[in-house]
Formats: sequence, C-alpha cells, structure tokens
Amino acid sequence: PRLRDLGVEVGVFAPGPLNAITDVAGVRVGHDTLIEGDRLRTGATAIVPHEGDLFQEKVPAAVVVGNGFGKLVGSTQVNELGQLETPILLTNTLNVWEAAATLAEEALAAPGNEAVRSVNPVVGETNDGYLNDIRSRALKPEHFRAALSGAESGPVEEGSVGAGTGTRTMGYKGGIGTSSRKLPHSLGGGYTVGVLTQTNFSGLLTVAGAPVWRDFGPKPYPEHDLSSKDGSCMIVVATDAPIDARQLKRLALRALVGMGRTGADFSNGSGDYVIAFSTSELVRIQADQSEQTIPRLSEASLTPLFDAVAEATEEAILNAILRATTVQGRDGNVSEAIPIERLKDSLRRYGAISSDDE
Amino acid sequence: PRLRDLGVEVGVFAPGPLNAITDVAGVRVGHDTLIEGDRLRTGATAIVPHEGDLFQEKVPAAVVVGNGFGKLVGSTQVNELGQLETPILLTNTLNVWEAAATLAEEALAAPGNEAVRSVNPVVGETNDGYLNDIRSRALKPEHFRAALSGAESGPVEEGSVGAGTGTRTMGYKGGIGTSSRKLPHSLGGGYTVGVLTQTNFSGLLTVAGAPVWRDFGPKPYPEHDLSSKDGSCMIVVATDAPIDARQLKRLALRALVGMGRTGADFSNGSGDYVIAFSTSELVRIQADQSEQTIPRLSEASLTPLFDAVAEATEEAILNAILRATTVQGRDGNVSEAIPIERLKDSLRRYGAISSDDE
Amino acid sequence: PRLRDLGVEVGVFAPGPLNAITDVAGVRVGHDTLIEGDRLRTGATAIVPHEGDLFQEKVPAAVVVGNGFGKLVGSTQVNELGQLETPILLTNTLNVWEAAATLAEEALAAPGNEAVRSVNPVVGETNDGYLNDIRSRALKPEHFRAALSGAESGPVEEGSVGAGTGTRTMGYKGGIGTSSRKLPHSLGGGYTVGVLTQTNFSGLLTVAGAPVWRDFGPKPYPEHDLSSKDGSCMIVVATDAPIDARQLKRLALRALVGMGRTGADFSNGSGDYVIAFSTSELVRIQADQSEQTIPRLSEASLTPLFDAVAEATEEAILNAILRATTVQGRDGNVSEAIPIERLKDSLRRYGAISSDDE
Amino acid sequence: PRLRDLGVEVGVFAPGPLNAITDVAGVRVGHDTLIEGDRLRTGATAIVPHEGDLFQEKVPAAVVVGNGFGKLVGSTQVNELGQLETPILLTNTLNVWEAAATLAEEALAAPGNEAVRSVNPVVGETNDGYLNDIRSRALKPEHFRAALSGAESGPVEEGSVGAGTGTRTMGYKGGIGTSSRKLPHSLGGGYTVGVLTQTNFSGLLTVAGAPVWRDFGPKPYPEHDLSSKDGSCMIVVATDAPIDARQLKRLALRALVGMGRTGADFSNGSGDYVIAFSTSELVRIQADQSEQTIPRLSEASLTPLFDAVAEATEEAILNAILRATTVQGRDGNVSEAIPIERLKDSLRRYGAISSDDE
Repeated sequence: PRLRDLGVEVGVFAPGPLNAITDVAGVRVGHDTLIEGDRLRTGATAIVPHEGDLFQEKVPAAVVVGNGFGKLVGSTQVNELGQLETPILLTNTLNVWEAAATLAEEALAAPGNEAVRSVNPVVGETNDGYLNDIRSRALKPEHFRAALSGAESGPVEEGSVGAGTGTRTMGYKGGIGTSSRKLPHSLGGGYTVGVLTQTNFSGLLTVAGAPVWRDFGPKPYPEHDLSSKDGSCMIVVATDAPIDARQLKRLALRALVGMGRTGADFSNGSGDYVIAFSTSELVRIQADQSEQTIPRLSEASLTPLFDAVAEATEEAILNAILRATTVQGRDGNVSEAIPIERLKDSLRRYGAISSDDE
Repeated sequence: PRLRDLGVEVGVFAPGPLNAITDVAGVRVGHDTLIEGDRLRTGATAIVPHEGDLFQEKVPAAVVVGNGFGKLVGSTQVNELGQLETPILLTNTLNVWEAAATLAEEALAAPGNEAVRSVNPVVGETNDGYLNDIRSRALKPEHFRAALSGAESGPVEEGSVGAGTGTRTMGYKGGIGTSSRKLPHSLGGGYTVGVLTQTNFSGLLTVAGAPVWRDFGPKPYPEHDLSSKDGSCMIVVATDAPIDARQLKRLALRALVGMGRTGADFSNGSGDYVIAFSTSELVRIQADQSEQTIPRLSEASLTPLFDAVAEATEEAILNAILRATTVQGRDGNVSEAIPIERLKDSLRRYGAISSDDE
Repeated sequence: PRLRDLGVEVGVFAPGPLNAITDVAGVRVGHDTLIEGDRLRTGATAIVPHEGDLFQEKVPAAVVVGNGFGKLVGSTQVNELGQLETPILLTNTLNVWEAAATLAEEALAAPGNEAVRSVNPVVGETNDGYLNDIRSRALKPEHFRAALSGAESGPVEEGSVGAGTGTRTMGYKGGIGTSSRKLPHSLGGGYTVGVLTQTNFSGLLTVAGAPVWRDFGPKPYPEHDLSSKDGSCMIVVATDAPIDARQLKRLALRALVGMGRTGADFSNGSGDYVIAFSTSELVRIQADQSEQTIPRLSEASLTPLFDAVAEATEEAILNAILRATTVQGRDGNVSEAIPIERLKDSLRRYGAISSDDE
Repeated sequence: PRLRDLGVEVGVFAPGPLNAITDVAGVRVGHDTLIEGDRLRTGATAIVPHEGDLFQEKVPAAVVVGNGFGKLVGSTQVNELGQLETPILLTNTLNVWEAAATLAEEALAAPGNEAVRSVNPVVGETNDGYLNDIRSRALKPEHFRAALSGAESGPVEEGSVGAGTGTRTMGYKGGIGTSSRKLPHSLGGGYTVGVLTQTNFSGLLTVAGAPVWRDFGPKPYPEHDLSSKDGSCMIVVATDAPIDARQLKRLALRALVGMGRTGADFSNGSGDYVIAFSTSELVRIQADQSEQTIPRLSEASLTPLFDAVAEATEEAILNAILRATTVQGRDGNVSEAIPIERLKDSLRRYGAISSDDE
C-alpha cells in the first residue's frame, strides 16, 4: 500500500492527482529492472523533465549535497551553470559511469545535436550490494536506454523496481517512492512540487512522526556494530514553479529535512543528494538565445514550496518502503518488506491511524 | 518541565548527567536578561568553550548554514581556518554588532594579547522583535560582558532567559534550551556531545514525533498568511571528541536534521545556523606552534556522533519550548508558554507518554 | 599618477569615461579619513549602489571568498537571498561592527522603514594596524555617516584616503583604487563593469605583467620571515548588466584572477573577498512584489564581462598603489609611496612603457 | 624547450631536481596517446599518488572548482571525506566515464579488495574536440589501463601527449605540463610541491608576466566572436607536506592564481578544476584504523606552500605550451606549436630574457 492507503497523512498540503512526481506536468519516469539468477537484483530509473530535447531546452536546476559520500555524476556543472541538460538516471553505485555514458550518447545522437561535443549527464546512485552482485557491474547501455525510452507520465511504479530493486531502508526493503503536493493558489501560486526518491539508508524508521522502530525494530546499533549504518538516498525534486537555480537550491535543502523526519541518520557512508529542477516553460534555457525574459518569484513566496518539498519527500520515502516487496538476492541475503499489519498496529498505538481509519 | 520530566525520550543515546551542553567538560554558559518597562524583552547568552584564553588556545570549529537569512558574524574566518578564537555570543538580530565589538574588546584587553591587532568574534542571533522593541537596539557592552563573566558550568537556565527572553517558536514562547548525549565507549569512544539552541522559528510543533500541532494548534498558514512563517534558530554544538574542522562541519549538518524533526519549516526568513566546536585539549590550536601532534578519528567512527548531535538538538529545542514562560512585551504583544497539561494529553494520544509514565 | 598616466594599459577593453566604479551609472563613492595625532591613520569608504533606498529596492548581489581570513560582515544573507540591501562600507578590521551598526541604524531610520525589524549591513575590512593604532578602535558612527553622506558620483579619490588611509600593499603604501571597463555593444551588450579595491596585501608587485619587484624590491621572504606576508584585499564589483546573483558570483571570482596578476600572494592571513552587485533597474528586487518580470542573460554572454572584471580589478589595485602617498603613523612606522620614477624605469625595462610613451 | 631552457624563471622558489610533479616522492605519471588515422588525437594521463594500494591507504585530498563547467568525476566524495582513494585520470570530455569505470574495476580487482563494493574514482577532462573526433568516444579501458600501468617516477613527458594530445591553449597547441618547487627548510619545512596540468583554455598568453600575446597574437575576441573563448584546465597538485584536506583546499585555490597569471580567461565554457593531495605517509588514511596520530601544520606555515603552488602551476602551464608540438587532426584542423624564436624575441622585448640569457 501507499502511505495514504493506511489512512496516514503527512504535512498540511494536498497531493496532486497521482501523488507522484509525474503530477508536475511533463515529467516522465521509466524503470528498467534486472533480476537474473541468484545474484543480480538491480536496475535503473529515469526521470525526464520534459518532452523536448533537454540539451536544446535546458531546465534550471541545482544539486544539494546532504552527505557527499558516493557520486552524483555531473553535479559541478549543474551548480555552476544552474542548468540540467540531460534526463536524470538513478542506478547502483558501480554502474553510474555506464549510465552517464549512455545519457551522453543519447544526447550526441539526437537530431539537431550533430555538432555537440560536450554534454553533462547527471546520474545518482545508491549501493544495492547486499542483495545484488554489485561487483559484477551488470547493467549495460541497453538497460539505461530501456529506462529512458520507457519513461512515461501517469502513475509511477514504486518499491522494488528499477533503481530500487536491490535497495534497503532502515531495516526493511526500500526502493523507489514518490509523492507530490499541489499548493493552493492563494498561498503558493497553485504550483506543484513532485519528489521521487531512491531509498537505501539506515536509521530509525519513523512514520508520520510515529517511532515505529521502537515497536518492531530493527535495533539501533545492534551489537554496537556500525556496519549496518550505511546506505544512501537520492532525491529528485521537480516543480512547475518558475524559479531559478539559486532558489531551486534552497528548495532542495528542504528535501533533506523531509528525509530526516523519516528517521534517516545521514551516517558517514550515506550518499545523500538532492537534484531539483523547474519544468516551467517560462524559465527554460534556450540554447541559441543570449537574452530571454523570465518571471522571478520573490524569495518570500518560496516558503510554501519549502514546506511542500519537505512533506513530499517524507511521504515519497515512506511510499518506497511501504510498496517495496521482499527480495532475496546474492548469497541468500534477504531483505524483508515491512510487515504491514504490524506497522498498522504500531501506527494505531501512536495515534497516526485512528480506529476510524481502519 | 524539561522533556524528560514528561517521560518523553528522544533517540537512543543517554544524556549526560546535566543533559546540557555543560556536560562537555569545560564548557560554560552565561545569560544576561534585559526586561525593562513595557518594551524591552531581550538579552544575551554566552557559550565559552574552555577556561583558558580562546585567542591563545583556539579550538577547531565549523559553521554550517541551514538557511542563510540573518547574520552569523565571523563565519567566513571560522570556516577558512577551522578555528574559533572567542567565546560565542547569541543575542537579538539588531545587536549582533555590539556583541561582536564586546568580544573583540575582551580579547584585545586580555593579558598576553597586548600585541593582537586582529580577532574574529562569533555572534549569532534571532529576531525577538515581536515581543521586544528591537529597533531600539537596547543591549550595550555591559550586557554582553555580564553574559560572558557570568558563564559557568553546571545546570543551564533555559526558556525565556538571555538571548531567548523574547523569542517565539512554532506558535509558543521559545527561548534557550539544551541537551546532551554521552556515547558508550564501545560505540562512540565515550565522547560527549552537547547542544544549546536559541529557538525562534515557525513550523508545526512535533514532540518526539507526535504531531501535537494537530491537536492544539497553531494552524499552519492561518488565513493563508505568510507573515507568521519566519524566525530563526541558532544551534551551538560542543563535543569533547578530538575531531577536526571538516569533521565538525559534518557533525553540524546533523543538528539541522534534529531541528527538522521538531517541525521546523526552515522558512525563507529563518536564519538557521549551526556552530560546532571541539573542546578536546588534544586538538587545541596553540598560537605559537607551527606543528603539533594530534589524534585523528576515522570518518566511519563519526556515525554515532552524528546521531548524538541530531538527538540532542531535537531535545534541546523541545526543552527551550517546554521551559519557556509566557512573556508580554511591546505593544501588548504576548507569547504564551505551551500549555503543559494539554501537551501531555496530546502526547498520550500519540503514544509518546504511556499511562505508566504519568 | 594613475596607471594609464604612465602609458601602461591592462587588458583589451576600454575603460569608461572616469575609469572608475562610478562609471556604472548611479554608483556613488564616499570617503571619510581619520588622521589624528601620531597614531590614527584610518578611515571608511562607502560604496552606494543607487540613489534610492537600498532596503526597499535591493540589488542582486553575491560574495566570493578568496581567502576567508578576516570578516565580511553580512556575507551569509547576501549569498542566501542573492540580495544586497544596504550600501557597502569598507573600513579597518577592528571597526567593522561599528560600521555595520551605523548602516543598520541608517536603514532603520530611513523614511518608509519604520516597521523594519531586520536589516543586513555589508561591511568589509583590511588591517591597517601597522600605521594605525587599530587597537584604539577610533572610528565612530559619525565617521561612517560622513562616508555615506559624502558619497557622490564622478571621479573617485584614490590612494591614502578613506578605508585606504593606513593600508600597505606589496611593500609600498596601498589604499583605495578604482577602474572600469565599457564593453562594446557587439560583444558585451555595451555593459559597464566598475571595480573599487581596498588594497592591503603582500606579494611580489607586478605591473601589467612587469615583475618590477625584481628591480626594486621588496625582497620576498626577507630573512625567511613570514611576518611580512599578511594583509587583505577587499574588492567591490559593480555592473549595469542585468544579471542574477549566481551570475554575479561567477563574475566575482574573476576579480580574484585580476588580483593574482598584480602579484598578490593570498597568504594565510589575508582576508580576500569580492562583493559584486548589479545596478540594473531591470533586476532590482522590489520589496513588495511577489513576482517580477526580468531579463536573463545567457551564461555564454558572460565571458566578456569576466574579462572586464579581471582587467578592471588588476588596474584598480595598481591605481591604489600608484596614487597612494607616503604615510607615517603609529610608533614612527612609515609606509612609502612607490617611487614613480624608479617604477617607470623598471616598466621601460620590461617593455610595459615604450620610449614613445614617455 | 621548457620554460627554464629559455632562461625564464617564474617566482622565487627553486624547482625540485626534475621540475616535475614526480619530485614529490612516490608520485608517478603515465600517458597513453591515441593518434589514429585523420581523426583521433586524444589520450589519457594517469597521476598515481603512491606505490601502495590507494584504496587501502587513502591520501588526504581536496577539489576546488574554478569554473564548474565540465566534469570532475568523484568530486563530492573527495570533499566530504577529504580523501582520494584511486589514482587520478585525465582524458577527453566524452570519455571520462570509461576512465572512471576503469579505475573502479582496477580497484575492485586489486588483491585485498575482494569485499569492496564501493569506490570513488576521480577523473578530470578537457575538450579536445577541435583536433579529435571526440564524438566517437574512442578511448577504451585498455587505453586507461595503459596510462595507469605505464605510470613511473622520473621525468614526465610533456606537450602533445596523453590527455594533452589534442588540447589547445590561448591560440597555440597546449598539452601536459609539469613543474615543482622545493621549499627551503627555514621557510616551508623543506617540503616539495609538484603540479601537473592539462591545458586547453583561452586567454591572452602571458609568459612570466610578458604580454607576448600583444606581439604575435592571437587577437582577443577576433571578429567579436565568442566561439574561440572556451576550453578547460585540469590542475593536479601534489605535496609531501603532511597537511589535511581543508588545508589542501586552501592550497588548491592558489593553483588558480598561477593559472590566471598565464593569461587564462576562465571563460564561461571553461572547466577549471584543481585536485590537491598529500603524499605524506604520516597522514595517510589506513582503512582499518579508527584512530591515528598525525602531525598538524599551523595555518600560518602554509603561506610559502601557497606561493609554491601558484608558481609551479604557472610554470607547468607554460611548459605544456612550450613543449607541445603542432598537431593536425580531424577535418584538417591544425593547432600550431608556439613559434619558439618569435616567442624568445618577444620575451627579450619584455625583459623576460636578458641578452645574456641567450
């Protein structure tokens, strides 16, 4: 189930119709999942900001580093120019370079880009090496192309799929999750914020504030062992608000706030990154124009968007966990889906579900 | 009461004996409170890292910017050199410069500093202008000197005192709060982390995960008005772990995670900063030595410290709110202390207090 | 003399009519110089971006840290919001707080700001403690007010004046210097860039590439003593190009390139900062508007502006040295003006002045 | 020739015996050059910090972004952890991902790393697309392996070789260049700094201050065309000084100062990055130790190292240009080596070579 199917709400703003990053018009998501034999449990997820050629019509973007372990391929150019010029791919830690090369090749091969000799692909990752034979680096260009070409609007598949196939989160199976917020016109100009997360981090699972980890584990620091404290979280934030790269960076930081509320511990080995972009046609960067006229929202008007990003990130992470299914992988390693009935009991105990909600 | 007096615990590590920043050996805290007539409700709080002359024995330090509204006087030099060379003062937004000048004068006047011609005071602030006639800039050097000279180890006065005299937090009176964590030897080397906060920010009050704002307000975005979304939070983190400035910066970021868990919204106008320092004698910077021998902790060993910082920050903020008393200030403006009995009811409803805890 | 009076040119673009920061329309500069008795040799310099109320009509701005020793009061808010809301004051290291307080009081007292309860003054500094009794902290609000109220358009007084009264640079007297570049329409849209510097740093004086330090000193590392390696440089960059804060940050970095070309060594103790702002009316931030329509220049079109900033900074620093006059200060300390005839000989030797130029 | 063969000196410190990055004990450099048919003119250069396994014995490191166009694969983790755990590869813009994947595979395959499931390769690049058919992405793992396995101490091949095969610099053929500085014991503790650069940027060629671009071109902004303003520069800084990551970041910034002195314009499309690391055995990070004892140099003692980095970078870039040979590449495009005799004439005119030096 998704979080709201349990009768649990996070925050104060209403989700968009799909409660997904695809509520931001034009955004498409595609997955490619690789489950093969006993040892491969991995995949890729593509987030495509708009229908056009991203290289010719770049979007304002920013990257924020929560904890810079791991890789966020392409981050320096995004922050220097404030622009994203390819779709975003998420995948496993040791296949990021193949993912980036595939994005570059797609851009070079696109009609109109025959003279392009530089492109900056953006790829994020988390480490699925507990379930997946990550050292085999099994993903190939065809997997990334499949994720890209399969990207579509509409509902987003969540859980143990695509780049979330082999990920684990706070003791349970994690994966891909998404959520959105549609602001009222009177407050946030009616803009939409959508978030997609690839969850793979340690911490103390907290659902809408309820410390469910106290009820049914796992134990923090079992045997005083640090090895279970690890992981990573990739967060992609999309909005149709016409805001610039500096403002997107401010938004992106609030995604980390939402992540923190789920119990994430931002441990030393966690690669926690946020990529935020605006899909607004009003602020796209036309490659051939030296001057454009654009809207500029005031800084004060960002506050509701900040809240929306934090809420949607928290809910997207919880959706990832709730929709993930048990996966057995390499060497018999198993990551269990969260037990929904026990979770509901716990949520009732903490007043996050009332009896009426059942 | 403090949070633990209600029977509520945050996180997994045990507090130090005082559950205060002063559990980090050598750290002293002093307040000076200015309540005068109908209009002045302000003050200063000093945090002194050790008993010696900070200028001659500097401590490793780092500043992290959560939201860079407002001022953190001295931040650039702290981050360039990785050093703190004066005590820290917290005060109101429009008196930071007088506070900084006072710190500088104290350093210049100290024995042994007769030839010093440059010093970098560090001052943080939040805006108490709702209760306090902040435009009158009422604090003078003597107030800051009183906070400094009154600094002492032992229990820390919390709530509507010192730099927290006129602050408000998520609909209630805020102020100064503190908390600490003492790590077990087997995990975190037995190190202590202490946090002190000056709370003055908006958001949806959440206590140990319990969304008490749903029960007794205030409403988010009343009348769709952004003017209540504002404020700031200053967080000071002390530890006796012998870590360097880059590592302290990593620690400091986790304070923002703890802050987020209290419901903070990091709104546009919120100046949210963390200053972290190490008191360990092993890593102090001796002004006259060109080379020292120091310990270096591995990055992996920081993870329990990260958790400790997040936990202690969350609890410190909640202590600030719980211990704050109602204050009436300029133009009849009132900020009410949180109603403890209603809060306890709400906490029971959310399972944060069991019946047995009453 | 100024650099061009010697027949020396830097770079490829032509200066504006005044070859000063005041070539950027609306920018005004004011000095207040304090020379008193044997021991006071200091002052303040104000840079005012436009004629209006900065608080009500803020300008896009950015701060870049070259070497973060020293203070740049107000930097965090400038970078968070991308806005400058007061004039800029430059002064000596130990009077920055009085300068900032004065800027705040001026803003609070301005008509229309009666309800303002937060303001972010920006103040830079260098350390004139060799010539000036800096420990006496002699500058008072009246000095800063005089610099502000005396700000005017037109030619800018350079050398041992205002905030440059007591500064030294690469072995000679330094001070205030300025320069500008007016771009051709075909390249840079006809925009103007102006730079003002407060020079107080060590290094190996290099004039338009000529290593004149080889000819007439001073020696680098005399007696292998590091104490002469010190100082600071404040650089203010103004432009009428309608660019945003992120782009201004890119521009500001290029000022450090120009500074490096003068032989600056960016030593450990040097506080090297750049503050850049746009005066364009098209991009001013109107306090009461939640959305504005603005132009956006492409990133590629910034390249000529980058060159212009580097050139103008190099020339501004050289103008500061060339126009500075010998100053004797505290304890009989003297800083000599650069000997112009010897400099000209040296420049001829290095082909920076041809025989025809004499 | 190298710069010193012309009788030209840069700065005040003496080079090491090889005047190369390999003067830093243990550092090795390897090239692989791909010249094939009419269209392939590219290659790879490896910089290996020490003889051991970098993954098991990491070195303190930092990355500084001058202009963040282009990619610096691996930068975020280097800056978060302050560690470099693979050799560094330099190559062309569109082959960075293959280079990174090769580094990762080498690390995974190394003895003792059988359980490693995450590694952070570091790869820099510049765009050789004018001479090289960069869109064909011709470099394969074998090329990168060849550069790595061929890495050796001793003199470094410079100019049109390895990652410099197809690069151009300020109108002339560029390439790989290197230089070093050995500090006197009395000043810099006798430490060595070595720099290696991959030069591919636009600007106004300046040799030891001499504006030789004025004499023999190329013209700045020919036909007011921005398309010639482009490129990138990768700078690798090695030192045996036992300094930490924050201090290395301070060092790295000074490399940009040296680069600026060669006339570099840091244009919009230039990817200008510095990677700095310490080879000192005293500060290596042993993967299996949670606490080590290390030396810490004072900040003040860094100043001579700062100068050394700036000097060596300037000279390394000039060596790259001077040693580069004319290359004809794709579509008949030619980049000419700088004409040495004309250059010497020009340098004489500017007093950079005396008659006696001939």
